[in-house]
Amino acid sequence: MYGVIMAGGRGTRFWPSSRKENPKQLLNIIGNETMLQMTVDRLQKMKNVDDVFIVTGEDLAPKIKKMIKGVKPKNIIVEPSGKNTAPAIALAALRIRELREDAIMGVFPADHMIVGAQKFAKTVRSAIQLANKNESLVTIGIEPTYPATGYGYIQYDRNSPEDYLNGFKVKTFAEKPHKELAKRFLDSGDFLWNGGMFVWKVDTFFNQLKSHMPDLNDQLGKIKKRIDDKQNWSRLWNNIEPESIDYGLMEKSEHIYVVKAEFNWNDLGSWDSVFEVSPKSKGQNVVRGDGVIMDGENNFIQSNGHFTAVVGASNLVVVNTPDATLIIPKDKVEDVKSLVAYLEKHKRNDLL
Amino acid sequence: MYGVIMAGGRGTRFWPSSRKENPKQLLNIIGNETMLQMTVDRLQKMKNVDDVFIVTGEDLAPKIKKMIKGVKPKNIIVEPSGKNTAPAIALAALRIRELREDAIMGVFPADHMIVGAQKFAKTVRSAIQLANKNESLVTIGIEPTYPATGYGYIQYDRNSPEDYLNGFKVKTFAEKPHKELAKRFLDSGDFLWNGGMFVWKVDTFFNQLKSHMPDLNDQLGKIKKRIDDKQNWSRLWNNIEPESIDYGLMEKSEHIYVVKAEFNWNDLGSWDSVFEVSPKSKGQNVVRGDGVIMDGENNFIQSNGHFTAVVGASNLVVVNTPDATLIIPKDKVEDVKSLVAYLEKHKRNDLL
Repeated sequence: MYGVIMAGGRGTRFWPSSRKENPKQLLNIIGNETMLQMTVDRLQKMKNVDDVFIVTGEDLAPKIKKMIKGVKPKNIIVEPSGKNTAPAIALAALRIRELREDAIMGVFPADHMIVGAQKFAKTVRSAIQLANKNESLVTIGIEPTYPATGYGYIQYDRNSPEDYLNGFKVKTFAEKPHKELAKRFLDSGDFLWNGGMFVWKVDTFFNQLKSHMPDLNDQLGKIKKRIDDKQNWSRLWNNIEPESIDYGLMEKSEHIYVVKAEFNWNDLGSWDSVFEVSPKSKGQNVVRGDGVIMDGENNFIQSNGHFTAVVGASNLVVVNTPDATLIIPKDKVEDVKSLVAYLEKHKRNDLL
Repeated sequence: MYGVIMAGGRGTRFWPSSRKENPKQLLNIIGNETMLQMTVDRLQKMKNVDDVFIVTGEDLAPKIKKMIKGVKPKNIIVEPSGKNTAPAIALAALRIRELREDAIMGVFPADHMIVGAQKFAKTVRSAIQLANKNESLVTIGIEPTYPATGYGYIQYDRNSPEDYLNGFKVKTFAEKPHKELAKRFLDSGDFLWNGGMFVWKVDTFFNQLKSHMPDLNDQLGKIKKRIDDKQNWSRLWNNIEPESIDYGLMEKSEHIYVVKAEFNWNDLGSWDSVFEVSPKSKGQNVVRGDGVIMDGENNFIQSNGHFTAVVGASNLVVVNTPDATLIIPKDKVEDVKSLVAYLEKHKRNDLL
């Protein structure tokens, strides 16, 4: 399998730590390595991974080449502009098809937390077997633990003959549900979270792309020709309609399987997820860096070289960086996006 | 009148802005000058002020000499150690008695906000007249506007013959009351807040000191002799029992008058008082420095060169300095003292 890591996002929900030039995947959100480096290492350690690619934008590519160990510079695939996941994955698939007609590719987000490297490898092995066996698009699904409204869901057929591989035929993809629907999904027992991880043979992928995203497939064909002729292909790329792989392909194709993840997963979508996965001290507080919490519970402090004190308050997220401080209640962390929008509107490029 | 400014305090409640070497009176809490400089200027502008003295500790004296304009270096009276207000005031009185037997002295805290310089001067003039006329200790009282539990109260006789000076005979001094009692004080209409400002003739003061604080008076006598002999008097000073002027003298003496302040006063006791006196923006928020408040009300942000964002939270005080951040609900600002105690216990001298 060729591993493809999607590293084009900005991760604005991790402001003020995440910035345009230092997005979430390049932060040490957990542990001592960046999220991207951990993702690279996880793949490189797997026996059945032949090589690892990173798809990212022009702004981040130089930094990634410099920072990330274990990926050849030529394996950094640069999108001329962000077009969401479907075009990015297709671009990587183009490259991989050049290497081997019957190649298998696995697509992984750069910025998710995965605990249990061996279980991860085992899950991916099942997905590879299934992708080979059934000529299908295989996604890795996460057993839900609560009625999350922040993830897409995958409904699967419990009686699939592939369950020996922990693999199941997918019935439907569902967009992020509201709370009530999420509860019904959870209760039904046949929904998984969509973790944004995919495994397939490149030729299966292109067949499906041709059926369900013919425009993108055509554009890709033209781009390939330009690349082969060593011509600039940015303009062709820039004309592509942005689309997610979930909406463009996975929700439309009939040939989808899901493998249940056996590993521990968290998408670290925002500061509250970091709180969730962090070890707690007294009062269920988390203090990362120099700081103290007095007379308060369920607070999360992250401070960078700046002593941070929360006194008499609870359920707060406080993040300190050398030039900015964020204070937001834990149940409102999604609103960091509005703050970043405010900073953009006010042209605070010093803080973006 | 000789003005004596009490500038020995630490103002721990203004942490992280206030530090041992940069206490509240040396901060620009409101306006562009330090609280101490504003206090000096207010007195120097009064026609009937002959000279201004500052009483402070050894640690702050050099800095005050350097920073403060309008006070002669020899008028900085240095206490060898902090002994609360009674000994500090007595030490200043010693010095002033040297200048003129019949001198009047006025004692003023270094760190209170006073709006209305002319009204202030008028109130002090009344206090001087009363001090001369009645050979009494005159205090300046503040008309209470709410049942504060953070101030001492002064009960006065509404039918004093000195009311043409806005002056009244004092019945009792009351320590900081609990909420219910404070309400009763307010309802009764014959209580004022004790603003810690005093005016008296030095010989009246020493007569009263002799009656009510004979030990301190004796020690002062010995200290005066040492000073006259140009001997070191630190050891004598260090043996003095600390005592406040309120408890030691004002509550015990029968010869107390109060003049009602006509000026606008705020002791700026903690961050919430600064919030109170600050102009508010939308949502009754206050942002001093670089920062923003989104989707929240009644917040106070003070940031020093550090963009500070509060999103989705209300009633918070957030103070950012180059090395520390404090987050505390507005109704708990008194607890800053506990935080400073924590820092002392943990020997965080970098933050004290």
